[in-house]
Amino acid sequence: MRKPRLMTPGPAMVPEEVLLELARPVIHHRSDEAKQVITEVVAGLKEVFQTQNDVLILTASGTGAMEAAVVNAVPSGGKALVLNAGHFAARWMQICKAFGINGVSLDFEWGQPVDPDRVAEALRQHPDTACVFGTLSETSTGTGHPVEAIGRVVAETPALLAVDGISGVGAIECRTDEWGIDLLCVGSQKALMIPPGLAFVAVSPKAWDRIDRFDSPSYYFNLKAARKKMKEFDTPYTPAHTLILALQAALRRIRAEGMENVLRRHRRMSEACQAGIQALGLELFSARPAEGLTAFRVPDGLKDGQIRKALADRFGISTVGGQDKLKGKIVRIGHMGYTDELDVIAVLAALEMVLTDLGHDVEPGRAVAAAQQALMGQPSAVGYYKNGSL
Amino acid sequence: MRKPRLMTPGPAMVPEEVLLELARPVIHHRSDEAKQVITEVVAGLKEVFQTQNDVLILTASGTGAMEAAVVNAVPSGGKALVLNAGHFAARWMQICKAFGINGVSLDFEWGQPVDPDRVAEALRQHPDTACVFGTLSETSTGTGHPVEAIGRVVAETPALLAVDGISGVGAIECRTDEWGIDLLCVGSQKALMIPPGLAFVAVSPKAWDRIDRFDSPSYYFNLKAARKKMKEFDTPYTPAHTLILALQAALRRIRAEGMENVLRRHRRMSEACQAGIQALGLELFSARPAEGLTAFRVPDGLKDGQIRKALADRFGISTVGGQDKLKGKIVRIGHMGYTDELDVIAVLAALEMVLTDLGHDVEPGRAVAAAQQALMGQPSAVGYYKNGSL
Repeated sequence: MRKPRLMTPGPAMVPEEVLLELARPVIHHRSDEAKQVITEVVAGLKEVFQTQNDVLILTASGTGAMEAAVVNAVPSGGKALVLNAGHFAARWMQICKAFGINGVSLDFEWGQPVDPDRVAEALRQHPDTACVFGTLSETSTGTGHPVEAIGRVVAETPALLAVDGISGVGAIECRTDEWGIDLLCVGSQKALMIPPGLAFVAVSPKAWDRIDRFDSPSYYFNLKAARKKMKEFDTPYTPAHTLILALQAALRRIRAEGMENVLRRHRRMSEACQAGIQALGLELFSARPAEGLTAFRVPDGLKDGQIRKALADRFGISTVGGQDKLKGKIVRIGHMGYTDELDVIAVLAALEMVLTDLGHDVEPGRAVAAAQQALMGQPSAVGYYKNGSL
Repeated sequence: MRKPRLMTPGPAMVPEEVLLELARPVIHHRSDEAKQVITEVVAGLKEVFQTQNDVLILTASGTGAMEAAVVNAVPSGGKALVLNAGHFAARWMQICKAFGINGVSLDFEWGQPVDPDRVAEALRQHPDTACVFGTLSETSTGTGHPVEAIGRVVAETPALLAVDGISGVGAIECRTDEWGIDLLCVGSQKALMIPPGLAFVAVSPKAWDRIDRFDSPSYYFNLKAARKKMKEFDTPYTPAHTLILALQAALRRIRAEGMENVLRRHRRMSEACQAGIQALGLELFSARPAEGLTAFRVPDGLKDGQIRKALADRFGISTVGGQDKLKGKIVRIGHMGYTDELDVIAVLAALEMVLTDLGHDVEPGRAVAAAQQALMGQPSAVGYYKNGSL
């Protein structure tokens, strides 16, 4: 008996009743019923995104939402500032390059948060920046970036702020309007608790003002076309509306739990996971951990593949390793969406046993106890990242 | 009791066991299990598409596959010939325009098939055509185009042939390689019997040769990136792999039925539906009906909305009306994918009753009898389109 536990930072687990929605007979996407579903879903997404901006639904991976943000916000030949601190932030640069946009890369060490002062400095150096592209939660490093502070900096300039919230939104606080996020990109398969296949873009009035000023070289991802159809709670092309039905069910769960409680749960799971990892003498990779996943450095003498394979083979737990320059150096555990505190306890208990098996010096129960202490709000023997400070 | 019968020309009905696949717990898209699924799915798609070409999986509506064909096959400023005979053919023009491609529209009357001789003439006039964009089954008019003959014409030129097979493939014969289709675009929610959200492009060596010659202004739909990942049975970005699992189940059904039998079933359903419609004294809209749907003209004195609403309200049958200039003029009945002969009988019987209710002169049972005769291979009282000739 090995129960599958999908502890990857996306796709994440999907509640059973949401899965069952997917098994309902298909309805026509232009029917009144379909429009009612979209109406409710858009309202629910606005609550999660904490926005009054237009929310548009795309049938695509999260990367499709990123492409939509780039091609609609910056004309070919225009300038973009990319806050480049990981594999997915680097994707903004690649998209800019593909569309002939002059992407200026503001590099930060992977695992370190973006420094808003350096963003301000870069915007002074590049006053013609059309859009700043940042990340809420950098999935490749497990780092949460200070988007609120970045938003304050960008708001003082004519530049737009586009944020990849794909693995962050729903797990970390994201006050889209209050923080001045002009283009928020979100994916379906993370904290929103449905399978991959849908992406969302929330578009501010400041962003629309820019978007309306030029003809974007886009068709499928043309946000003007999506806005026009969304006025009738419709989409320009046949959407993956089985997934939209599932999203309706998932958003009802989020509403029932309450957004504040959802965010609190993610904070608690994050603190517990960090406490457990550190109690094992392992090193957290990120200097500012995001709340949807925990990345730790592979200890000397072990390989990440050994740890991950043992977790999978013996316990059915899926995790992911590092990407690009972090390949082999870190292990990432997702705890977002349909995940509870005991899932975190389970993965820590499994990690203790697996590390022991691999000959690593581990005191069984220590990680679990540290996580329990964190969950009970007791002071831990080891420090862990909490509310923005160690 | 009103059982839902989704008789729209996409999305079409999905078999129960395929729906249940969608309710399975989500797995990670980079796992060995996911790669095995993609391996089997690609082999199954090649059988349906009758191709040895590369088949790439996109997470998008069918329109996304069309955009991928356009942006990868024709550089900005290049010339494209669009075989423009309906709403969806016109979309090729719109995509070309969005990407700065010089689209030459070769117009045909809606409902008439494309004339290959006119294609040859246009290619002589425009020898610099980079790609010809056509349609296998024009969903807006219910017309099947002679792609085999068009393919022969295009093959004699340096131009590529891209075909929108979104509502056709799986319902109408499509010999991709034999007919010289260089870029075949297919959607998931039609004859492939799964919900919307996936699209496919089959790419010939002639097409790759062109694609490799320039940097396409594309990222999400970059076919070179998709080809690279597909070598490892993977996709560049997180795919809608719940739908890929469903596709595996749907393709197993197609293999079990046998592709020849699947096509024969669609021909029989198409002939039966046409026979029934004509037996009611209604006029088929298309001069060359496609096998996945039947379009008929709204009889004088009635409105399409009345007919469609009565079919839906009284019998739970979903159909669609006309688009653009055909709005209010036709009704379209889909019979593709997970549809059997008795579904066609049911919609004809319902149509007889609905038309009677609406005061239209109908002899009850006549359409059903004509359809039965067609299904039994008996000569019908009225002629119907069969095997390419009336």
